[in-house]
Amino acid sequence: MIEFRMPWRNESEEGYRRIAMVRDRLQWEKEQGISGYYHLPETEEGLIGRVESLARDGLPREVETLAVIGIGGSSLGAKAIDRALRVGRPDIKELLFLENTDPLDIAEKFARIDRERTLFLLISKSGGTIETLSIFRAAVAHFDLKIAGRDRRRIWVVTDEGSPLWSFARHYDLEHFAVPSNVGGRFSVLSAVGLVPLTLAGYDTRSLLKGAAAYGRRFWSDLEDLLLHKALFLAEHRERYPMNVLFAYGSCLEDLSAWYVQLWGESLGKISESGEQRGLTPLGQIGSVDQHSFLQLIVQGPQDKTVTFLKVKEFGRDLPIPALELKYLESSAYVEGSSLGMLLEAECDATYESVRRHGVPTDMIVLDRLDEEHLGELIYHYELLTSATAAILEVDPYDQPGVEEGKQILKERFRQISGTKD
Amino acid sequence: MIEFRMPWRNESEEGYRRIAMVRDRLQWEKEQGISGYYHLPETEEGLIGRVESLARDGLPREVETLAVIGIGGSSLGAKAIDRALRVGRPDIKELLFLENTDPLDIAEKFARIDRERTLFLLISKSGGTIETLSIFRAAVAHFDLKIAGRDRRRIWVVTDEGSPLWSFARHYDLEHFAVPSNVGGRFSVLSAVGLVPLTLAGYDTRSLLKGAAAYGRRFWSDLEDLLLHKALFLAEHRERYPMNVLFAYGSCLEDLSAWYVQLWGESLGKISESGEQRGLTPLGQIGSVDQHSFLQLIVQGPQDKTVTFLKVKEFGRDLPIPALELKYLESSAYVEGSSLGMLLEAECDATYESVRRHGVPTDMIVLDRLDEEHLGELIYHYELLTSATAAILEVDPYDQPGVEEGKQILKERFRQISGTKD
Repeated sequence: MIEFRMPWRNESEEGYRRIAMVRDRLQWEKEQGISGYYHLPETEEGLIGRVESLARDGLPREVETLAVIGIGGSSLGAKAIDRALRVGRPDIKELLFLENTDPLDIAEKFARIDRERTLFLLISKSGGTIETLSIFRAAVAHFDLKIAGRDRRRIWVVTDEGSPLWSFARHYDLEHFAVPSNVGGRFSVLSAVGLVPLTLAGYDTRSLLKGAAAYGRRFWSDLEDLLLHKALFLAEHRERYPMNVLFAYGSCLEDLSAWYVQLWGESLGKISESGEQRGLTPLGQIGSVDQHSFLQLIVQGPQDKTVTFLKVKEFGRDLPIPALELKYLESSAYVEGSSLGMLLEAECDATYESVRRHGVPTDMIVLDRLDEEHLGELIYHYELLTSATAAILEVDPYDQPGVEEGKQILKERFRQISGTKD
Repeated sequence: MIEFRMPWRNESEEGYRRIAMVRDRLQWEKEQGISGYYHLPETEEGLIGRVESLARDGLPREVETLAVIGIGGSSLGAKAIDRALRVGRPDIKELLFLENTDPLDIAEKFARIDRERTLFLLISKSGGTIETLSIFRAAVAHFDLKIAGRDRRRIWVVTDEGSPLWSFARHYDLEHFAVPSNVGGRFSVLSAVGLVPLTLAGYDTRSLLKGAAAYGRRFWSDLEDLLLHKALFLAEHRERYPMNVLFAYGSCLEDLSAWYVQLWGESLGKISESGEQRGLTPLGQIGSVDQHSFLQLIVQGPQDKTVTFLKVKEFGRDLPIPALELKYLESSAYVEGSSLGMLLEAECDATYESVRRHGVPTDMIVLDRLDEEHLGELIYHYELLTSATAAILEVDPYDQPGVEEGKQILKERFRQISGTKD
């Protein structure tokens, strides 16, 4: 179980009244199906069974690499979990994420793909994501993939039922999985979007759901109100603290941090019911590396940030820092006899303490260890926190109307470019 | 040459008076040696020659991997350049950056190291960085490195003359290189800190300096005043726009973005001469990926950000998006006949346009191509921009006093931890 150290309680009657309202709002969203993510921990186990059985019977035996073609909400969740859990698990299949249309990046990843040993997993909620479909087209040409015959078995699709990609998959008889229509991309990691690639890779996705469900049960039965207090604090103080830093200790948490940035930024950055441009800006930092990069600004720059520390107690592996006779390096000898893991944990504690002393609002999330269950818990926690904060900000966390204009301009520009360069 | 599209000119008499003052300030800092980074493009060529000759004569011939042990300013610059330029250059030696005391990360990197084929490059300006020296201790034990005999040749040191690490290197007769004492970590990429690993790896570091020097000549001879106008705009509007987003198009620019975050955040986040906590918060985003993550917040969230777009015209490699008969996917067919690179460029232009239309202050930096010379130019530009902005904010960009307390707490905590766990 995750330990949350959140000193944000608003013990006033008004505070309790407001958090009760927020909980009611979330309960209502859950019951009304305003967003389907609330239910995923309970409803998706059947999907895991289906993927497992397909992996046994429907997948070419020689598949060793899963090439996920998807961007944003279609890749960030699985990528976060894969990055956090991969090290030290040689049984897990390779996952390659083809996200960006950067030609260097894609060429380099294509070069690592053996088409005979690869499953191409096409993920797009809308079924029309231009980057995803362009990379898919490039892959079809590069690997000479036939959307027919034997090759059909190495192309799978995850998308909304009824999307263009759904019709495409049905037309060519490709294996396909539905994302519930009321589950938005950035809330979709516990749906087929995350579960299909992660289950295929060999992760224990049942435990992922189990962790999320356990947290959900505590939350819905009113045993976890800390996140509501945190949401209230962050939303009410948004003018003073427009930014929240997630300071995660461990390099393997980098993509989890990117997942949080999308969830928080894209869900909360909205025009409110009253027509105001609202939102909180997320910043992902990695400890201890970014103590040497970003900490100075947190401590002595404008006091416009709250900071959430994320600490893992046991990484499951450690390296000793031995006592050595190293002349002139005695001033750093105080760590000798301990370990890199102990140093990392101590750095987190020390930085937390130092930042607090400077009057910066901080909280801390402590994971006993990094595994599927703890990550499921953490993911569901952050999703609920986002919904709760959105409710107080009076914004809709489940859409993203602001990015549509850019897509339109792209189409026009693109036609201009291809017109001149063709 | 880089093209800068910066619409921030302040054409008033007062504006010109202020930018003239800032230029004078920078000129004065250069002449007085307040920071030594100003001179690096002219002074460091000799160092490259020395590294090249050592690589021929002083380095075990079988060395194929360079394990850089360093953190923050001691790694970010070389890492940024390596990441930006590596793809498609099989002649370049492997660079492994051992930065974080995350035991999983270090164990995984140790597993990739063949000690007989590796040069360990220990980089710490102060010579006392706890992470760096702890990872070094762990490496000595893990690889059974002798600080004597043959093994001495596979340990090199970069540090301040006179630091504990300097004395260590001299005592054990290790190859060592000085960082000029008036060059701070985050301004040190064009010193031995960046040049030793990058030259050894095989990058054309002379062109890196050449690009920086060329930009410097234009700046010092008053042909480049755009950055001064930008600095003035950003500093003067810091209350309204406390954040600057660097939206860099291309996955290989991710570490360059991290380098910028350190430079900007740690240099400007300071207590000013008048005792005020000042600074601007840097955010690194990668296009087009983060259009699906962060763009919504920029466009419809609070208007508290300026955005700098960074675009590369030619990546030197491209992948076609062919015309294919894909039933039901016709709505994304408008890109057919073009390429992934063209799509990426069009996405950058479209997003730039869309963000501008929403009234967000934007500028754009265009690189004809990604090579050492362009990166040298870009790096020197950003360093000068940082110094100029600091001058207007009246903060000292070259120190980082805010992180000292955390280091003290660490020592105490650490002693407590090792006391209880030993």
